[in-house]
This record gives sequence, structure tokens and C-alpha cells, in this order.
Amino acid sequence: MQRTRQFNIRRIHDIDDKVVDDLVAIEEPLEIRIGFRGADGRDEKSVSITMRTPGNDEELAVGFLFTEGLLGSAAEVVEVWHRSPPVPGDADLRNVIRVDLVDEASIDFARLERHFYTTSSCGVCGKASLEALNTQSRYSDVLLQSDFSIATADILKLTQKLMSDQKVFGQTGGLHASGLFDASGNIHIVREDVGRHNAMDKLIGRLFLDGGLPATDHGILVSGRTSFELVQKVAMAGVPMLAAVGAPSSLAIDVAREFGITLIGFLRDGRFNVYSADHRISTQE
Amino acid sequence: MQRTRQFNIRRIHDIDDKVVDDLVAIEEPLEIRIGFRGADGRDEKSVSITMRTPGNDEELAVGFLFTEGLLGSAAEVVEVWHRSPPVPGDADLRNVIRVDLVDEASIDFARLERHFYTTSSCGVCGKASLEALNTQSRYSDVLLQSDFSIATADILKLTQKLMSDQKVFGQTGGLHASGLFDASGNIHIVREDVGRHNAMDKLIGRLFLDGGLPATDHGILVSGRTSFELVQKVAMAGVPMLAAVGAPSSLAIDVAREFGITLIGFLRDGRFNVYSADHRISTQE
Repeated sequence: MQRTRQFNIRRIHDIDDKVVDDLVAIEEPLEIRIGFRGADGRDEKSVSITMRTPGNDEELAVGFLFTEGLLGSAAEVVEVWHRSPPVPGDADLRNVIRVDLVDEASIDFARLERHFYTTSSCGVCGKASLEALNTQSRYSDVLLQSDFSIATADILKLTQKLMSDQKVFGQTGGLHASGLFDASGNIHIVREDVGRHNAMDKLIGRLFLDGGLPATDHGILVSGRTSFELVQKVAMAGVPMLAAVGAPSSLAIDVAREFGITLIGFLRDGRFNVYSADHRISTQE
Repeated sequence: MQRTRQFNIRRIHDIDDKVVDDLVAIEEPLEIRIGFRGADGRDEKSVSITMRTPGNDEELAVGFLFTEGLLGSAAEVVEVWHRSPPVPGDADLRNVIRVDLVDEASIDFARLERHFYTTSSCGVCGKASLEALNTQSRYSDVLLQSDFSIATADILKLTQKLMSDQKVFGQTGGLHASGLFDASGNIHIVREDVGRHNAMDKLIGRLFLDGGLPATDHGILVSGRTSFELVQKVAMAGVPMLAAVGAPSSLAIDVAREFGITLIGFLRDGRFNVYSADHRISTQE
């Protein structure tokens, strides 16, 4: 399976500014189903959807079921198969995998419910989820029209500013951060958490409580990588720019392009990449 | 709220080897509930449990509900409150927060079900979850008895070895990795993914399919930070050592100590910390 995708991006390193082709790790949903003997013959049940990089899906499915205590040994498994055969060009079909158990195996579905909790998602299909998201965000138009802009020189200083504002990180070396910045590169609010989605939710929650949404004249900087979910949250908040110290996933770029959000990655050591809507980057002195 | 906790750990930097007190970011579950007007007066419903660092819980709750499309504006919210008042020394009581909506607000709970997906969890209470996990892992005894041991010098080389085996990371700079290593510091299997839990599940899934569990004579190295969930997975697989390039959370350390798993953090630049079961680190030449 393809694990990387090529994107045409803009790479800025000090005064060097060029358009290049870049490889990005693919992020796609995988739905894990269990096939078992039910009251009326073979039955199946969906137990999890995870955002993953394609490849080794069989391992991922059984590894997940085992570490969750739902599988005991390989002897309980008859077969692990992509429920529909992978079809070139059709990403959806390779994103459902089924673990078929022997007839004797019993799954405690009640315990499964108790031991799992929910987090945000897109649904199984990347395309369907993009459509759902489009319907959902009340700020789609506002985002496309935002004339927020920031100079390259100010972008390059953001990471250092965020780190100096990370109080708990300074003590522990172990927290993600999200920071809200303005068009001059000033950072106004910083929130930290062990979970990068939580740091983002805290920041957007502050804006929500203060009546500061949509935040069309600001950007958000995150300390780690950008996933589908982080871009989704930024889109919901009407924030036209997301900058990250780490790499984006393929789906993060897809969503940013769909919404006209400026997505920046690898913002460190005097350089960064722009993956979408680069008209908000001003290179004039 | 307390966001860091002090732990007594062992710090090794080249030949310097000492016991120190270290601050670690707290990881604890937060259950988010919605209070609304139901058919028979006020009602409430649990919508999410997330592993978070305490502090700014109100922001986290409304930020999550807003970015998931369940809340529209602050005018819909009457109050956000810790359902039971925080009691010093009782972590459980501060881990449930409720967002009370105005009577007119309507939540589409059906959509909520459709748009959320499951991931592994511990339940709301840290203590209860540790007990549940204890019951669940079939390898608790095996872990405690494992005499797996590895020399400091071999540990210090692991990070570089993992990075040279990360094929997709080399192309994209954007993937998490999990690698299985033996007592001589040789890395045998490496799996990569945009999600760090997935990289771990793929690796453990491979062992599961090959009949290699419990892997009591191996350790696992991860490229990022260690959370509760990663230590939980390692405990389920009967792996006695977990090493990480990044920081651990408080709950990661708690679980590792409970199971007698050797937990290593900040393994880079010729140094590392040992948070638990340090008898498996051999410093003799």
C-alpha cells in the first residue's frame, strides 16, 4: 500500500523561497470489524475507527484487538482481510478490515462498550468526511474571504516565542502547546496539555467563552504535527492559518486546501513549508 | 489545579548516574457531560472521556463541544462546572465536568453517535482503571518475573538505530515509530504510523500473529512521548521495558510502576531517565 503522497508545496528557508515537490505521510481512516458466529450464522460488528497510515493493516487490527483485551491468541483468528478488495484509485475500499474469529470464540461486546470511549472523527471515508465537515463548519465562507496575512520574518520567530511561553513544558519537557498569534507575530494565548487535541480545544474554548470566534484575524501555532483532526478544529473555529513545528499528514493538507486555510509545517531552524493558501504569507520587507 | 507531579527517578548521562527528583506533566482522565432539559426536567449525558493535563477544564469542555459542532455560541451555555467539587487528595472528583445548556438548546445526540468513534480507554477514574488493567493483563506475573536486562551503553545507541530503520520518516519527517529490541540492543521489527498508538499496535500485532507473545525478553522503543495508553499496550503484550525518545506522563509512570515495567524517557543526546524498575539497566562494562 502507498504510505506517502507527493504534494506541490512552497519551501521557505531564510530568503530562499521556492516551489518544490514534497513527500507526505498518508493519513487515512481504518475501520476495524470483527466477524463472529452470531445467532443467525456469521455476523460482524464494527469496533473501532482509527486514523492511520496504510500498510500492515492486518497487524494493526489484531494488535489493537489484542491490546484491548478482546483477543487472546492467534488461534482464535481464522482470517484477517480487507473487507472489500483494494481497488487502485479507490481509497475507501481499502479502509475497512475484518478480523474473522473461529466459531468457538466469544467476544464480550458489553465489556467492549464499557472500556472504550469516544473521540472526534470523520467517519470511515475520507471523501464523505470532507463533505460532512463542509456542511458542518459555519465559517467556511468567512475562512475563504479572510485577508489575514503575516510576514515571513514574523513567522520564523513564532516557534521560539511559543516555547518561551510554555510554562509546564519548561518544567517537564513533556507537553504539547497551542498558541494564538496575530498578524504581527505576537502570541496572545497559550494552552498546554499532554494531548495535542486538548491543547487546541482549550485554546478554542477560551475564544468561545470570550466571544472571539470566528478568529479570522489570527493564526494558531502547534508544537507537534498536524493531523486531520487539528485542521478540522481550526476550520470549525474560523482560523485562517495553522502553523506547526512538525510535519502535516496528507489528510491535514487535503482539509486545509478544501477550506482555504494556510497550512505551515516544519516551522523551525529558520525555515518552513507552506502546503496551502500561500497568499497569506507576505515576503515583502 | 496541579499540572505537574514530582517523581523520584534515576538519571543517566554518559557515565554520570544519579537519583534525582523530577517534575512530570500530569495525565488524568476528564469526562465531559452535557446538562440539558430532558422530557422529565434536567438531564445529563456523558459525551466524551479524554486523557488530559488538569487545568483550563472549562475551556477544554466547551472547546471540544464547539469544535465537534455540538455547541454554537456561548449564549447556549448556562454554566460549566466540575460536577463534584474538587477535593484535595481525591483526584476522581475533579475529573468530571458538566456543561449546562440553556433550556432552549437542542443537542442532536444521534449525530453525536454518528460523528464519534472509539478508542481505547481506562474509564474515568485513574485508580479504577489501574485495577481493571490489573485484572485484564494475562501477563502481570510474567512481567514481574522477567529477568530481561540491557546495558546502559546499548540503550544509548537505540534511538539512532531506530531512526535509521524508519523508512517513511526518512522520506517525510512525519511519522511515529515503534521498534522491538533485544538484550543486546539490536532492533528487530520497526513499524511506523501517523498515530503513535497505531505504530505500537502494528508491532504488537506482528508479534501476536507470529506467536511471539508475551515478549518477555524484549523491550520496545517509541519515537515520541509515553502516555497511559502506550504503557497499557506494553503491559498487555508482556514486554518488560518501554523506552521513549520523549517524556512520560504521570499516569504512564504510575502504570509502569504497578506492572514492574522498566520505563525510560528522554533517550537522546547521550542521556536518559529511568522512571521505574531500574534493576533491568545494567551499568557494568
